[in-house]
Order: sequence, then C-alpha cells, then structure tokens
Amino acid sequence: MTAAADRQLTSLSELAGLVAGGATRRSQLATATGLSRAAVAQRVDLLIDRGLLVETGTVATERGRPPLSLQLASHAAVVCAVDLGATHATVAISELGGAVLAETTEDLDINDGPEAVLTALDAQIGRLLDSAGHPAEHVRAISIGVPGPVEASTGTVVRPPIMRGWDGYRVPGFFAGRRSAPVLVDNDVNMMALGEYGHRPATAHLLYVKVGTGIGCGIVSGGVVHRGATGAAGDIGHIAVPGHDDVLCHCGNTGCVEAVASGAAVAARLRAAGVPAEHAADVVRLVAAGDPLARRQVRLAAQRIGDVLASLVSFYNPDTIVLGGSIASLHDDLLADIRAAVYRRALPLATRTVAIETTLLGRRAGIEGARRLAVQHLLSPAGIARFIG
Amino acid sequence: MTAAADRQLTSLSELAGLVAGGATRRSQLATATGLSRAAVAQRVDLLIDRGLLVETGTVATERGRPPLSLQLASHAAVVCAVDLGATHATVAISELGGAVLAETTEDLDINDGPEAVLTALDAQIGRLLDSAGHPAEHVRAISIGVPGPVEASTGTVVRPPIMRGWDGYRVPGFFAGRRSAPVLVDNDVNMMALGEYGHRPATAHLLYVKVGTGIGCGIVSGGVVHRGATGAAGDIGHIAVPGHDDVLCHCGNTGCVEAVASGAAVAARLRAAGVPAEHAADVVRLVAAGDPLARRQVRLAAQRIGDVLASLVSFYNPDTIVLGGSIASLHDDLLADIRAAVYRRALPLATRTVAIETTLLGRRAGIEGARRLAVQHLLSPAGIARFIG
Repeated sequence: MTAAADRQLTSLSELAGLVAGGATRRSQLATATGLSRAAVAQRVDLLIDRGLLVETGTVATERGRPPLSLQLASHAAVVCAVDLGATHATVAISELGGAVLAETTEDLDINDGPEAVLTALDAQIGRLLDSAGHPAEHVRAISIGVPGPVEASTGTVVRPPIMRGWDGYRVPGFFAGRRSAPVLVDNDVNMMALGEYGHRPATAHLLYVKVGTGIGCGIVSGGVVHRGATGAAGDIGHIAVPGHDDVLCHCGNTGCVEAVASGAAVAARLRAAGVPAEHAADVVRLVAAGDPLARRQVRLAAQRIGDVLASLVSFYNPDTIVLGGSIASLHDDLLADIRAAVYRRALPLATRTVAIETTLLGRRAGIEGARRLAVQHLLSPAGIARFIG
Repeated sequence: MTAAADRQLTSLSELAGLVAGGATRRSQLATATGLSRAAVAQRVDLLIDRGLLVETGTVATERGRPPLSLQLASHAAVVCAVDLGATHATVAISELGGAVLAETTEDLDINDGPEAVLTALDAQIGRLLDSAGHPAEHVRAISIGVPGPVEASTGTVVRPPIMRGWDGYRVPGFFAGRRSAPVLVDNDVNMMALGEYGHRPATAHLLYVKVGTGIGCGIVSGGVVHRGATGAAGDIGHIAVPGHDDVLCHCGNTGCVEAVASGAAVAARLRAAGVPAEHAADVVRLVAAGDPLARRQVRLAAQRIGDVLASLVSFYNPDTIVLGGSIASLHDDLLADIRAAVYRRALPLATRTVAIETTLLGRRAGIEGARRLAVQHLLSPAGIARFIG
C-alpha cells in the first residue's frame, strides 16, 4: 500500500470514528478534522457508497430545508460477536452502533476440538442471520472470545489449559472460504475487560479479574487491550501467593493463586472438609445458603486474591479493578477482603483512587467486549481498507 | 483552541516527527503524509521560520541543482536534560537530534529541599548554557528526572521516601518567571526506562528495574511511559515476597522486596553477619573482591527479585527486562538467579521471548531518557503549539 493510500484510510477511519462518536453533520466533520468541505464530501460519499455510513433526512424545520443526518450504517452492515465458553456458544448479531438484533446461546463441548466446535458455531451464526433477516454478506466482522490464550495478531490458540485439541489452531483459517468477513479472535477475559471498559466512561486504566473455575485478568488502557509481547498479558493465575508452597497446581508449580483461591480450589477445600462441592457453582450456592465453612473459605480466597492484586496495583496503578466470573456474584463476601488486602499492601499514591468493584455486565461482558472489538476493528484503518477495498 | 488549529498542530507534529525519523526531502514528506506539495511547503516553512527545522544545501551532484536537506534545528533550539539524584545533579544541553553539546555533574543534597536544590540547579543550567554558547531563549524544553514519585501531568512530587521537604512541591512552578521553556518532571526510573527503550529498536514492551539502595521499575510500551492513574505505576519496591514476614520495611509493612533484596537490605544482612558494609556500593565492592558471603547474599536477593519479576512477566508479558542501578553492575551474580526464578515461575507463552539483560546505558540512562522525553514533548502537538505560538 502506498503512503497516500495509507493516509486516505487513516482519514476515512477518523471520519467514521467521529460519526460513531456522535457527529451527524458534514460541517461538523469538516470543523473537527480541518479537511475542506469538498474533501469531507468526497470521503463521506465513499463511506456511504460502501455501506459503512448512511445519511438520512430529519424532521423539517421552520427554517427551511431539513439538514441531513449521518450515522453508522444500521441495515446492510452488522457485526457478529461470539462468546465461546467451555460448554456454550453465545452469538449476537449487532448493528455497528451497538443495538443487538438477534442473539442465541447453544450448548457445546469445547473439548470436541476446533473443527467440530467451529462447524457447529458457523451453523449457529447462519441460523441467527436467517432469523434476523440478514444475508451473510451484511456481516462486516466476526469477533470471537475463546476460553484460552490466543496470539491475537494471527488468531492462533496457544497452549490452552482447557481447550483439548486446539493448541496451535488458527481460528480465522477455519472461516476462510466460509465467511468473507474478517475474523478477530482473543482470549475471553480480554473481551470481558473491553466490555466493562466500554461501560465506564471515566476509566482510563482497567483490570478485569475473572474468578471462576480459574483466575485470569484482562488489561485495558486508553481503550486498547494490553496483550503484551506474545499475547500472554493478564495470565495471572500462576502468580505465587505466600504460605502455600504445599499446594500443587496443575501447571506443575506450587502455590499458584489459581490453585489456592479459584472457585475450583475452594470447592476442593470444602470437599476435603466433608462438604459436597464439585464446582465453583457449588461454592456460590453454599455461600448463598449461608454455609459458614464455605463463607470462611471464600473469604480466605479473597485475601489471597487481594494479595496478588496489591502487587498489580503497585506495578500498574489502575484506576478501576472489576471482579467478574461466577465467584464475583458473592459481592459482600469477596469485596471486603480483597479491598482490605489491597489497601494494606499497596502504597497510598496507588490506592487513593483505585475503585474495586464487581462486574456491571455480568455474563454479558464477554459478548459486549467482542462486539466492541469488532466495531473498533471496522473503524480502524485496516478495517476500513477491507470495507472500501 | 479550534479543531482546525488542533488539526494543524497534529500535522506539524507529524512532519517534524518524520524529519526526526530521517526524512530529509520535502517530497518524502508529501509522499509519507498524503499532503499536497503546497501544503507541505507551507508547513515546513512555518517550522523553519520558528526555528524547529533547518534546511541546508548538500554537495552538488552531476545531475544539476543540489537537493535541499531538512533536519531538526541544531543551533537555535536545544533541550536541557536533568538527572537529579540524592547527592548529585547532572545537566546536559543537547541538540534536538540527540548530540550532547555540554554536560556537567555537581554535588548537592536533595534533602536541602526544593528551593535550595532548584536554585542551585538553575544556576548550574545557566553556567552550562554560557559555556556552550547558547542564550537562555534557545532552550526549548527542560526535562528533569527526580528520585521520587511524581504526578507527571503537573510535575508535583508526591510522598517521596527520600526527598525531605519536597512532598506536594510542584517543580515547574519554581521555573515560572525564571525560564521560558516548558518544564517536564518525572520519576528518575521512568526516565531510565525511556532511555534504555530508545536504544533498543526491536523492543515494544520494556521494564527497567533499578536495584540500588531501593528497588523501582519503569514501564515503556510503544515508546510511551506507562504512568498509571496517579503516576505511581512501577512502584514495585513494596511488593511482598514469600517467606520474609519477619523483615520490617521502612513503609511499615513486612516482607517488601525492597526490604529483603535491595542493596541496602543486603548491606544490612552483611553487617548483621559481622561484615562491614554500609551501602549498596559496599556490597558491589565486596562481591567484586570475591567475598563469598556477599556473593551468597546477592544471589539470594536476586532470587527474591526474580520471584517478583516472574509475577510481572505473567501479568504484563514484556519482551525485555533491563536491570540497572548499582547492583546491576554485578552481572553474573545477578542475572543467572533472576532468570532462573522467572523461567521457573512464569508460563512458557510469556517467557519464551523475554530477554533479561543489564543496562546498556549505565549511569547515563536517566539523562538520556530525560533528553528523549524533552524531544518527544517538543515534537508533540502540545510542544509544537508552544514553538509556533
């Protein structure tokens, strides 16, 4: 690509982003960008022609000709967001502006491997498009959160602990020939972090910590997911916590916070004490029912998670930590002890502004983040390039 | 400021950045930006007129008229970089392109407080400008690294552990009325991180860990220092390490890595064992002389530092960790144990690409980072605004 074409894409991306942010008039775009009205007209016409923007008349005013109003396309351009879990796939078809047009959740077993899972997912996407009345070519981006580490630049799953048969699998490759839209893939916790970030306009540096069967973290600064050098950023489950050298983790090390304080770890402790608990969900149920031993174990787990978060607060200095995952539904039992640990260990300059709270979006964080990532990509220069290509 | 003026500044900043990156012809700027030759000419002329760029003829070629060559101004525009330590101030006057024109180091005591220290510093800057033959108005930015936490947006020192009398002091306020250039202030470790980053072109995510009397960290991703919500990011000295609940830290907590593994902590352990060692420098001297007890204590400290870095590698996934500070001069005794701890604890996806090495710049990292920050600011839209204002 030439530099001039590159520059044109950046300019188109900027214009589309301004419309997504609420600019509705061509004159606003000229003012905001410094481009001439002719240059704005040429570019806006291109974006309309390719179906990314639409321009509609508004109610006539007494002053004369009604002004035209620009917005992101709401009919012929939609995005497909996918939240792929260990045992389910949720698919949502959304307008670029955010409205969800159709959504379904179906059961699956991630350990059936990539070909079987993605074949079923692709069929689910097809049925959902049919029911929403959109032909396949309306889908402008597919964004998939998966329950394991991903090299986001290529969409390749890398050494996942729970996705049997997926190691090294490049997810977008499956859709080549089946779907024409670009396929974005990321770790589900990164998607959740992006979803929560989007619902907190005053936040600049957010950590989303998922405490469920395992423990993971997504990092968002300035609206962008921090993925690190190899896409492994946020993999905090195997950070060591003091005083638990006797606890063996499935990774082969000892004292990992996931082995000590995850929902699975608490369930294991309860079983060892004679309380029937198989999964994180059983822990939640027991605490909700007032079981004192379960409450005690959750509070101890919260203290260990708080110790790890104290280190991360000292290092990264976030303004917001969001707790999600099944265990996060236990607000009162979790938050007090986590907060106490962070305030006890991290320094005042870092803790004086940090908010530690539970998820706003709950189970919808992942699908909402996937949707945001899809639109973010579409409005980027690279996304625009495919749109107008 | 209007959006059009804002846009103009962004464009000027982009052009200046391209020249800083090696573009020397107006035609290259037109190609790279997509601007018309007339628009490039108008903007380049403005930057030349205000003294940020210069354009010179080159040796005539056989093909005819020699092409003109653009570069950053090297005469009437310089930056002043300052590395302020506990007992010294180093000041360097540099061209925008990086060449150091003059430099001095003078003794001071940071605990004399801000007015006394900054008065002496300002006089040192004045003498250095005189000796370099530059009048005060040539200085386009002053960039100061200080040995304590700073709220970088305002240049205010916040709760510094070793800077007596500086808490809450806004450093740029001192220079108002004395110097017309903008004054940038940041923590010295952030400056060092930026300096090391600038000398590693292949690096994207860098942690600079200073191990001296204390322990601190600077974080740079994509060329930008990550300062966090309140400027406290990288303050890792008070992260707890396992198994040292009996070690009291000056912060009032126990088991902080700084209390267990800093140069001061190792010196204290040696004293307790009857070996005379007051400071980190004594530890370095003893190890260099082959003292086995000192070597043993440094290796134990390296393991504890490695444990902390393993957590940060899991969380942040950097591609490079640079060790600096006085203890880092003990390469062999430090690196092996730190690397072993990181590789033992952090996950393969995060460790397979991380380089753990000692400083390239040594004591010059801080002043080099301050210089880079000054030029980075000058070439930013905000810096350009002052230049052409």
